[in-house]
Amino acid sequence: MLSGLKKYDINLSAIVSMADDGGSTGILRDELGVLPPGDVRQCLVALSESPQIMRDLLNYRFERGGLKGHSFGNLFVSALEKISGSFSNGLIEAMEILKVKGEVVPVTNGKANLRLKLKNGKILEGENVINHSFFQKEEVAKIYYNSRIKANSKALEKIISADLIVIGPGNLYCSILPNLIITGISQAIRKSKAEVIYNCNLTNKKGQTMGFKANDYIDAVEKYIGRNRINYVTINIGKPSKKLIEKYEKQEGKNVLVEFDQNKKEKTNYKIIEEVLSNWKEAKCSKSDALCRLRSFIRHDSDRLAKIVMDIKK
Amino acid sequence: MLSGLKKYDINLSAIVSMADDGGSTGILRDELGVLPPGDVRQCLVALSESPQIMRDLLNYRFERGGLKGHSFGNLFVSALEKISGSFSNGLIEAMEILKVKGEVVPVTNGKANLRLKLKNGKILEGENVINHSFFQKEEVAKIYYNSRIKANSKALEKIISADLIVIGPGNLYCSILPNLIITGISQAIRKSKAEVIYNCNLTNKKGQTMGFKANDYIDAVEKYIGRNRINYVTINIGKPSKKLIEKYEKQEGKNVLVEFDQNKKEKTNYKIIEEVLSNWKEAKCSKSDALCRLRSFIRHDSDRLAKIVMDIKK
Repeated sequence: MLSGLKKYDINLSAIVSMADDGGSTGILRDELGVLPPGDVRQCLVALSESPQIMRDLLNYRFERGGLKGHSFGNLFVSALEKISGSFSNGLIEAMEILKVKGEVVPVTNGKANLRLKLKNGKILEGENVINHSFFQKEEVAKIYYNSRIKANSKALEKIISADLIVIGPGNLYCSILPNLIITGISQAIRKSKAEVIYNCNLTNKKGQTMGFKANDYIDAVEKYIGRNRINYVTINIGKPSKKLIEKYEKQEGKNVLVEFDQNKKEKTNYKIIEEVLSNWKEAKCSKSDALCRLRSFIRHDSDRLAKIVMDIKK
Repeated sequence: MLSGLKKYDINLSAIVSMADDGGSTGILRDELGVLPPGDVRQCLVALSESPQIMRDLLNYRFERGGLKGHSFGNLFVSALEKISGSFSNGLIEAMEILKVKGEVVPVTNGKANLRLKLKNGKILEGENVINHSFFQKEEVAKIYYNSRIKANSKALEKIISADLIVIGPGNLYCSILPNLIITGISQAIRKSKAEVIYNCNLTNKKGQTMGFKANDYIDAVEKYIGRNRINYVTINIGKPSKKLIEKYEKQEGKNVLVEFDQNKKEKTNYKIIEEVLSNWKEAKCSKSDALCRLRSFIRHDSDRLAKIVMDIKK
């Protein structure tokens, strides 16, 4: 979404979840006591107007030894936090060094430890654990933080003064909702006069959103920002090859492509934009970045998605 | 030397030793199989015209966890080597990203494992071991590499076509001689029509150059580049405070300040330039960089040194 939008002459702010605690990011949080660099890094790279080599560098993952699994960009963000004395100061430096178009805004400056409580009483602790757990939406009792998390006032300002608020695509429980459950964020979205676009995910995730229709995602978002707050929903109607779907379903389970429930189409308060939005060329990943390659089968075409968003803005 | 010279409108090439195998650099050599980034990083930082924050970042050392002791700049150089397929390609990218004035040229593209043989037959293996060993110059039989190291042809070209060749200051056994012992390098210096300046160290190093006079350093260099090849020698005559000398001698031993042996002054083939060249303000080191602070008591004033070099060039 960001790498598509950055090509337009607009004032762009990317509000980023700070719940990440897995992999390289988790190690840096634990060992260095820094705020999670991972999601911020991805936004920095997407919005950077630096040469390609700089963006490749930020995405590079070390493959061996004590550095194994660390993304260079995470080390970059964490070192800048240490040098400049705070995550937000480090981020300002990072945006300048990387010639970032627009601004990357952490949703909170606090230490955000995500929890997901199931109806059977079990609590999943941490974004990474939640991300790798299997549950049905009916089983979810609550998603919350283990302490009171204050929204970053800059994030609130950006939301309230926005012309357009774009939500998604992204992992529902680990990226989208962790922003919306923070006190103040959903309230700011309600208060803002901006139109709201929700970009529905292309595919469902095994063990969490298996068998979801687009409506299920929308319901989850509306639960926080209000029943009539979404003005537009983009839905992909492009079909990747059978072979690719099979490959994907092997990993994520049956009915992997997200569709709109045709029976509910008449009653919506938002406009449904159905277009071919998927791109099934493999994303450019460095050979070393297995994680990237795993994720890269079916993706949004960032240019097409950005065009739709910009057409709405007109 | 480099940070002083970069302020002049000259065509600067820094030829860098590749023998480093200690600390962060040693770990990266072992674990990632990269060429040693440490000395190259220091030259990149000295010649960089990037904002100060970028240079601070390159010098930043992680203090905790699995990254402890790693300099961010070493990770930067090593990641670029991995992404671009070779050390020399990575270095080209690094120079561009860091807006380096002039060029940083590795003395070799080979894997350089330094050895120092003592007259008692003992062999000290590796630059880091040599650096931390104690011996007298009379005990040294030979300094060499454990395999045939080929000079980087670009380094040879730069030396042969130079107007001025500047040697030192630097650690004698671990930085200066490791360049001069490489086949071709000393020959190129002899062949070049450039004038040669040798900047003598300010202080002696415990257990290696203890009690050295300037003449001892010069002898060691002339042994490789030829008896009449040095045209100018710069010697510091500035005296730091007694307190600072005491602090330094506590660490490095007696007679820590390098002086010219007055008895030998008449017979030299080079011009001796005696000036106040030392700077005893503590160098700017990040709080985390204990290594930097340890080194930072008495240093060359880079601007004064550069002025002398540039006056010779006129």
